[in-house]
Amino acid sequence: MKFGGSSVAGAERIKRVARRIARERAAGSNLVVVVSAMGDTTDELLALAAAITDDPDTRELDVLLATGEQQSSTLVSMALHALSVPAISLTGAQAGITTDGTYGKARIAGVAPARIRAELDAGKVVIVAGFQGQSAKALELAETTTLGRGGSDTTAVALAAALEADRCQIFTDVKGVYTADPRIAPDARQLPVIGYEEMMELAHQGAQVMQVRAVELGWVNDVVIEVLSSFEDAPGTLIKEDPLVEQRNKVRGLAHDRNVAKITLVGVPDKPGVAQGVFGPLADAGVVVDVIVQNVGHGGTTDISFTIPRVELAKAKRILEPIVRELGFSDMTTDSSVAKVSIIGAGIQNAPGYAARMFGTLASVGINIEMISTSEIRITTLIAEDRVEEAVRALHAAFALEQPEAVEAAAAG
Amino acid sequence: MKFGGSSVAGAERIKRVARRIARERAAGSNLVVVVSAMGDTTDELLALAAAITDDPDTRELDVLLATGEQQSSTLVSMALHALSVPAISLTGAQAGITTDGTYGKARIAGVAPARIRAELDAGKVVIVAGFQGQSAKALELAETTTLGRGGSDTTAVALAAALEADRCQIFTDVKGVYTADPRIAPDARQLPVIGYEEMMELAHQGAQVMQVRAVELGWVNDVVIEVLSSFEDAPGTLIKEDPLVEQRNKVRGLAHDRNVAKITLVGVPDKPGVAQGVFGPLADAGVVVDVIVQNVGHGGTTDISFTIPRVELAKAKRILEPIVRELGFSDMTTDSSVAKVSIIGAGIQNAPGYAARMFGTLASVGINIEMISTSEIRITTLIAEDRVEEAVRALHAAFALEQPEAVEAAAAG
Repeated sequence: MKFGGSSVAGAERIKRVARRIARERAAGSNLVVVVSAMGDTTDELLALAAAITDDPDTRELDVLLATGEQQSSTLVSMALHALSVPAISLTGAQAGITTDGTYGKARIAGVAPARIRAELDAGKVVIVAGFQGQSAKALELAETTTLGRGGSDTTAVALAAALEADRCQIFTDVKGVYTADPRIAPDARQLPVIGYEEMMELAHQGAQVMQVRAVELGWVNDVVIEVLSSFEDAPGTLIKEDPLVEQRNKVRGLAHDRNVAKITLVGVPDKPGVAQGVFGPLADAGVVVDVIVQNVGHGGTTDISFTIPRVELAKAKRILEPIVRELGFSDMTTDSSVAKVSIIGAGIQNAPGYAARMFGTLASVGINIEMISTSEIRITTLIAEDRVEEAVRALHAAFALEQPEAVEAAAAG
Repeated sequence: MKFGGSSVAGAERIKRVARRIARERAAGSNLVVVVSAMGDTTDELLALAAAITDDPDTRELDVLLATGEQQSSTLVSMALHALSVPAISLTGAQAGITTDGTYGKARIAGVAPARIRAELDAGKVVIVAGFQGQSAKALELAETTTLGRGGSDTTAVALAAALEADRCQIFTDVKGVYTADPRIAPDARQLPVIGYEEMMELAHQGAQVMQVRAVELGWVNDVVIEVLSSFEDAPGTLIKEDPLVEQRNKVRGLAHDRNVAKITLVGVPDKPGVAQGVFGPLADAGVVVDVIVQNVGHGGTTDISFTIPRVELAKAKRILEPIVRELGFSDMTTDSSVAKVSIIGAGIQNAPGYAARMFGTLASVGINIEMISTSEIRITTLIAEDRVEEAVRALHAAFALEQPEAVEAAAAG
């Protein structure tokens, strides 16, 4: 069971989480619980560091941030003790989580859950501080490292895999995975089950239910993940290998993402090495480039458009301005009033007609498509940000996503 | 260098502490710095635990509280990085501090400062999270334990001993150790030097400059301790073996303590085992009994008076009420409007006349002495709380404590 920051924000919510855990344990389960830091704790600690220095040392920042989850894990354990449920909190290091040692965005190198197993055997509920692990150096030099934003999801899935858990439940402030954001598409429907790959594309394209990394880790290790509400007692959405994928409506859900900006480089010399000259420095600076479109060249030059996270736009411009001059491009334009809308479903690429229906639907409501990108299971369009909600509603209707699929009842079991 | 909670309360103070450390390092010292949690952090964490349960699990509470010092140590390290001073924060466990494993009030079992030495050799200032250590179990079962209130002083002295440091500086919100509390006795004088035993009695009798345990640890390990202000740059008071003790004015300082209550048991049967029947249960409940006076018996019964910390009075009454009935005492009375005033100086007991002068001084200003207790280097009187300040001023004058001693200039070197 993994509880996010909003689920443990304050004493009352922590007590509610403890009651939920106690009910689950009374039903006979052996439980390992992963918690995030309480509410805004991580942001508050970041603000404290920012008040001291513009450029906090990454090692120190990781030790600082890791205290947030250490605090919440002890408090959940205390709340369980108060309900007479035997419990113990463990830090990431005590839980046996080792990492590659990269501060701020460590990857899990291994999980050695001997201590967890011993505590489970002793009849305890084990509460693990999420988002952290210890670098796999010699013990006296081991360092605390954090897994990056949303790292607690990754902790939970990694532990579920190492412990061969029956299920990894991710408790959130939504009831599960929906065909679209219900705040935008009122007839959006909760999916009883979704495949790993579809979920990864949904997460990657803006659905904020779960971290992409955690879904990927679940996929690789065949962990059955359930996304469900921490505030009400109802079945969530199962993320698992989906044998019925071929029988389904191929469009399973819509995702949208407003954290997008578009950069266009105009008059780029059409010769080898230019793309590397542009995208190499961006990658070195950690700017993730998403959709890239290179237009047909004319007169020895071409235009390159690509998208990046909107929050990185200023940084990207700083990096690109000297390159534009140096490589002799005629211009660079940027647009931060765009957004991505995607349709996602396994095998979408192999089934003709989906792309046409998507583009046709957008055209029918007068929405201009600026860029297109596709994968095996996804078609993404870049459109004006102020048309996003309209696009989501139109596509939701066009693909009849509000209708339950015939095969779903069987699959949800 | 040890900085307490008020010295690191907030980003600005942390930056000031960092500048102080940087100056000291520029002067050529190898530095290990011990920090407490920022300001009220420990109390806030205790309040959070109290909001969840009346009776927090002691293991979980220790992990929770230890995060406070982990946070402040990283922030001081970041502030040093910002000044281009190489620095690294270490938890108590990383610093090699092992304890006896008693939660909430662990005692240090050993210090293995290999990591600290390695970081010093690498040219870094080492910032250690105070107040904590790791239980000395097999590593995968090692637990975080805290050293109790004021434990950061103990951390600092223990590290100074293990590292054979030249000096252990305790930075506080006062300039040093005074002959009396300067807020009460305006002509109180800062002592340039004081012996360990005298400092222990001063601390034990209410001077809040330093923890008794830490002074004791310094004494046993011959660590030269300096108490000084974190807010101004001035010499403090050295606590060290004092070869000049015999040449001094024997009264070195006054201490007073308002955290006192008096309990009197009336009509106690004058037979063996009664004292054990009273003080045994109090000791079991962790109530520290201080001064005990048994009056002369009359008619087969006697009266026993003793003092306890005022904050423990309700608890002590709960424990004693059934005992009073069971053992057939005629009455129990309590008084929480008392206070202790002590004169302290090495060898005071062997030099006649000090007790007489103390009692005479109090009598001359009309202050009634309710109880008396003495040690080798201390005479303590219990008086009405509302006469404390007057008593301190009268005794300060009677023993001419405002006058520098002739030998002090030589001793301070």
